[in-house]
Amino acid sequence: MTTVPVGERNVGLSAEIDARLNTFFAERIAVSAQYGSDYERLWAQAAAASDGGKRIRPRFVLSAFEAFGGSDADAAAAVDVAVAFELLHTAFLLHDDVIDRDTVRRGRLNLSGSFASDAVAAGVSGDRARLWGEAAAILAGDLLIHSSQSFVARLDLAADVRGALLDVLDHSILVTAAGELADVSFSIGMTEARLPDILAMTERKTATYSFAGPLSAGAILAGADGDALAVLAEYGRLLGVAFQLGDDLLGVFGAEDVTGKSVVSDLREGKETSLIAYARATAWWPEIGALFGRRDLTDTEGRSLADALEVCGARSFVENLVDDYAGRAIALVETSGLPAALGDELARVARSCVGRIS
Amino acid sequence: MTTVPVGERNVGLSAEIDARLNTFFAERIAVSAQYGSDYERLWAQAAAASDGGKRIRPRFVLSAFEAFGGSDADAAAAVDVAVAFELLHTAFLLHDDVIDRDTVRRGRLNLSGSFASDAVAAGVSGDRARLWGEAAAILAGDLLIHSSQSFVARLDLAADVRGALLDVLDHSILVTAAGELADVSFSIGMTEARLPDILAMTERKTATYSFAGPLSAGAILAGADGDALAVLAEYGRLLGVAFQLGDDLLGVFGAEDVTGKSVVSDLREGKETSLIAYARATAWWPEIGALFGRRDLTDTEGRSLADALEVCGARSFVENLVDDYAGRAIALVETSGLPAALGDELARVARSCVGRIS
Repeated sequence: MTTVPVGERNVGLSAEIDARLNTFFAERIAVSAQYGSDYERLWAQAAAASDGGKRIRPRFVLSAFEAFGGSDADAAAAVDVAVAFELLHTAFLLHDDVIDRDTVRRGRLNLSGSFASDAVAAGVSGDRARLWGEAAAILAGDLLIHSSQSFVARLDLAADVRGALLDVLDHSILVTAAGELADVSFSIGMTEARLPDILAMTERKTATYSFAGPLSAGAILAGADGDALAVLAEYGRLLGVAFQLGDDLLGVFGAEDVTGKSVVSDLREGKETSLIAYARATAWWPEIGALFGRRDLTDTEGRSLADALEVCGARSFVENLVDDYAGRAIALVETSGLPAALGDELARVARSCVGRIS
Repeated sequence: MTTVPVGERNVGLSAEIDARLNTFFAERIAVSAQYGSDYERLWAQAAAASDGGKRIRPRFVLSAFEAFGGSDADAAAAVDVAVAFELLHTAFLLHDDVIDRDTVRRGRLNLSGSFASDAVAAGVSGDRARLWGEAAAILAGDLLIHSSQSFVARLDLAADVRGALLDVLDHSILVTAAGELADVSFSIGMTEARLPDILAMTERKTATYSFAGPLSAGAILAGADGDALAVLAEYGRLLGVAFQLGDDLLGVFGAEDVTGKSVVSDLREGKETSLIAYARATAWWPEIGALFGRRDLTDTEGRSLADALEVCGARSFVENLVDDYAGRAIALVETSGLPAALGDELARVARSCVGRIS
């Protein structure tokens, strides 16, 4: 395998991803204006929903593309593939919020919250205003799911390369929807959420489209071989689970000024996480279960619930799980013969999953 | 222009569309089974949602493809494009039902109704069961929106032809979402629904993706020139509006055994149609408005409301509008130099929009 260092080109390509997203949204906002101000606002809010993210998925596309020696001729295609994964991510967030009935994200009203708030201001009643918000968010997500694939569909590449990239996108969407469905099933109590089910759901809902997909796509575009693609898919799986478990910990034990959301919200919503699945099997469950998922949970009760999740061993159990998954991801990339620069970056990313709270 | 008759090949291609849809869904159902029985059922229900339609959109793709002399070499691509429009239609129906909070379509539980019913049977409470149904329908629609474009993205055609087909799909989705948003805005009372707004909404929500899009796509694949494409787009616009206005009439004055839905349901839901927009500007409105949109509307009240819509002139006004739009569509295809066989079929379709109730 080649060992192309992650170089200055990626810095330029990263800027191009933002520019490409800005151009895409600006063009759509301009076109949508001819269909009325509501539709123009829908596109403007979709652009806002895509803004401010950490761009993890685009960066993985570029890192893999660079590390496997992607050519300058294909650099524009790499940017388009990176944009596709970012738009897919925004689409999933929009629909996830509709499904979870969330109206706030990153401390601000999200798209559906913002539309619902407009409707209330216009004198529309609560239930109808909520419907307006949900309809807008469903449509915005639809448009971005479609737009995401457009960026890949229009690439002027050899049919087999384009086909392989479309396969990655197909697989990402198929698996993510399966994970999302399982997540809803747990949250409404259709299915009992045992720990192995939570881990499988996490892998499907997060790891595939956020980690394995972008890495594989970047590598495919650079012509990586099947062995390397298999390593990246497995690394993505391990890292994605580590990352999501870290999010579960942050959701309950993180500092609010870092996470931008209340540490009570996961507990109040009754979000079925690895912490809860572990606690359910301990002697502490009667006490925890009595408060967990209560919509009227106070901050004080939330803190005592968090304490109970620590005392019952759930916190340290999940922290160890994060270490375990991240450790396996690091060991894999350090021993698999990946290009050195890529192996280094992937190991660094995996290490950053550990101890995110402290 | 060539004048290829609509021939036996189309009969064969129609059968291939059904076969292709069946194969697609069978393969997805098989793959989804590995992610659990809920997900397998989601795909099975998505297949059921696609089954039993009139296949109007695929037929338009094939008719245009045939009439403009599409080659045997491109016939498989025509089938894929036809499948893409059918899947897009199913996706829109799924999300439309979520937005309208409908749980029944064509006289049966729809996907969200079916999932909600499963949840109730499993002991889940009403609100959570509804959430389960909505989540499943949102995800199923997402999967089909994506799958729709996949069929076009994977075509091994010259980049400019594939690009033109992707443009048609892009435009269809962009415009349909604008129409859907306007429709919701009317139904919740955010925007007053005047007749020109209703007609513009109808054109956007229905005409573009159901008529103009499929015809344009079939013609592009057969190499039709820009003039012909412009005629098809305008015909699709006129016919789509005529067709939807006919649906508005059927919704209130049609026979239930033909439409498969209660003639009271549109009136009970407060669906803003051309009939209502007309009635609103008449002296009869106080009487009509007092009953319109009442959730507890009885069948008897519904019938008296339908009578009032007839007496106030709304019915004959809309019937004349249908005649007008269909007449302009017929005149256009009869004078525009389209291939004779296509002109004949399009005129026949337009004539079938007139007098659908009698």
